[in-house]
Amino acid sequence: GIVLVGPNTMGILCTRSRLFATGTHTRPREGSVAFVSQSGNLGVQLIHWAERQGVGVSLFVGSGNEAVVTCSDYLEFLSEDAGSRTIMLYLESMREGRRFFETAKKINRTKPIIVLKGGRTEAGRAASASHTGAMSGEVKIFRAACRQAGLLEARVPSELLDLSAGFSSLPLPRGNRVGIVTLGGGWGVVTSDECNEKGLAVPPLPQEVVNRIGKHLPPFWSRGNPVDLVGTRDPEAPLVAVEELLKWEGIDAVISLGIVGRIEFLRLMNQSIRTVDKNMPAGFLDQTEAMVRDYEEKYIAATAELMEKYAKPVIGVSLVSTSGGTVRSVPGRRYSAVLYETPESAVHVLARMVNYQNILGKEETEYRRQ
Amino acid sequence: GIVLVGPNTMGILCTRSRLFATGTHTRPREGSVAFVSQSGNLGVQLIHWAERQGVGVSLFVGSGNEAVVTCSDYLEFLSEDAGSRTIMLYLESMREGRRFFETAKKINRTKPIIVLKGGRTEAGRAASASHTGAMSGEVKIFRAACRQAGLLEARVPSELLDLSAGFSSLPLPRGNRVGIVTLGGGWGVVTSDECNEKGLAVPPLPQEVVNRIGKHLPPFWSRGNPVDLVGTRDPEAPLVAVEELLKWEGIDAVISLGIVGRIEFLRLMNQSIRTVDKNMPAGFLDQTEAMVRDYEEKYIAATAELMEKYAKPVIGVSLVSTSGGTVRSVPGRRYSAVLYETPESAVHVLARMVNYQNILGKEETEYRRQ
Repeated sequence: GIVLVGPNTMGILCTRSRLFATGTHTRPREGSVAFVSQSGNLGVQLIHWAERQGVGVSLFVGSGNEAVVTCSDYLEFLSEDAGSRTIMLYLESMREGRRFFETAKKINRTKPIIVLKGGRTEAGRAASASHTGAMSGEVKIFRAACRQAGLLEARVPSELLDLSAGFSSLPLPRGNRVGIVTLGGGWGVVTSDECNEKGLAVPPLPQEVVNRIGKHLPPFWSRGNPVDLVGTRDPEAPLVAVEELLKWEGIDAVISLGIVGRIEFLRLMNQSIRTVDKNMPAGFLDQTEAMVRDYEEKYIAATAELMEKYAKPVIGVSLVSTSGGTVRSVPGRRYSAVLYETPESAVHVLARMVNYQNILGKEETEYRRQ
Repeated sequence: GIVLVGPNTMGILCTRSRLFATGTHTRPREGSVAFVSQSGNLGVQLIHWAERQGVGVSLFVGSGNEAVVTCSDYLEFLSEDAGSRTIMLYLESMREGRRFFETAKKINRTKPIIVLKGGRTEAGRAASASHTGAMSGEVKIFRAACRQAGLLEARVPSELLDLSAGFSSLPLPRGNRVGIVTLGGGWGVVTSDECNEKGLAVPPLPQEVVNRIGKHLPPFWSRGNPVDLVGTRDPEAPLVAVEELLKWEGIDAVISLGIVGRIEFLRLMNQSIRTVDKNMPAGFLDQTEAMVRDYEEKYIAATAELMEKYAKPVIGVSLVSTSGGTVRSVPGRRYSAVLYETPESAVHVLARMVNYQNILGKEETEYRRQ
């Protein structure tokens, strides 16, 4: 028989073999995220986002109406594809539900599967019927099956990307206890609220950790978690804080806010100086920018190194849209630095990683009991 | 007595008088959004986001620890400031709770107040205590008071910005019925789901509306809501669809997806063509880009015009990060076009505008009963 992708597909893409056969001219970098999408248009747009955000992609297929090859078939292939280690799915409908969920459950143990179901509501189902012609099944059944198989459900496309960036770049947290390092108090408050509301803890720090971090901070610092760096100019302070938190057994993950991204504000200030003070030597301002840029690069490399050393995730929040994107791979390192634009993205991804870790743990226990 | 802003402030800003006295060198454009923030760092960062997104700002004040002037004082001033018509607040604590909510309730009838409360959770409160030294009150009481006063609560800083962009630029919807126009089926499905999950309806279209829109579309189009333009090249189709939906009394608002932002994909395609086909005259490709850019400008201007004509909001979703920002003001027009990057932002803002309209309606009814 003939193997047919689609019909109604936006094409396929394989970065490793430099095959870019999609309707849209987008070229994501090579990486470990595979994406199967029943919507071609939404699919290629997400691949474009992946490119912009630096999320590394292995394969994309617009599976379309799945006349011959179905999402279960693609999943089976992906389970054997060494280059694919995180899987995103956009589904409106499925045939062979049992086969799909059995396959997915097996694969999900080693390759996290993040799934967005289109047509969850009455309006969505009506739209879907005229789109892929799909008869979307009962959403409650779908959700229950996802839960049973341990799949991670996303609600909107941007979440698929955020989660893929995190899962493909960071070590899994072993628990839900977060250390926060921030350049400004308000962001620490907002991030703490987000953590608690998503089921993550922000534990107080033991005195010895406070003391060690305090050596690099002015005496009026927060002395607690979040570690508020109160705008310190000590270049070592941010990394000392991050490492001291990672070192402590009471913390499973670190979120750092505003440390990378600071260059944006320096640029604005230098722009003002250039306008106002014509006597300021341009070379000096360029030099300050180069120094901060250099510092940010080193910070990114150091977080990748620290993640390897402590096997705990460090998630950055840039608070500005940076040209470098969300995922910053560091040559020779197992993990990549991840920089979300907002704290809510960082907290959300971390919370889902904790979920996933719990699912794995539960399965492990069940397996041992058998 | 001496009037004192702060202490612990990041300064003040007034675009109308070209006063930019903040710690960060950011210059938002003049507009109608006023922002009072107890966190200076978070405040100026949001002002920077406002600048990037094109959200027009009237005033900003980092109110800090509010030793003398409190948020209630600022609110009273803003109620009389004709240049300020939408108000954002970041609060960690407040004194004179009764005065604040009484003032806020009065002002909220004509100037929507969007408030983000930091320190809603245990971790947030702990962080807040070491930040502004605030003893944040019981959050349930705060929330109940917000609800009673009809204030709009935001959960994260990005939401403050999204809501400000919408409230300051668009007419209020009179009800919750949404018409969707999309360039791709999947985005229509995802947006329909979001609408239903946020309490918005996506009603089916009457035959005469289907027929009128259908004149500009291939026969295999969706014939329903969402209006899937199935990648049509008829340049009139998108605006015809938007206007036919606005014209129909069964629709209170329109969300249009992917129409502005298409240029991004054309650019990518042209880049490929330039690489592959050295004989392609460069002028031709530049011309196609100029045409699409021109089309998008005209579309933006037309939506501002249509909003005035029908007094219904049209919210755009670009699906890409565009250099033009979220708010696009159109000279001589009462309303500005708004382009969010994702459908979830558009739907969320629309849902909150419907909430606000309902609050106003209820107050009106109560007032009449008296």
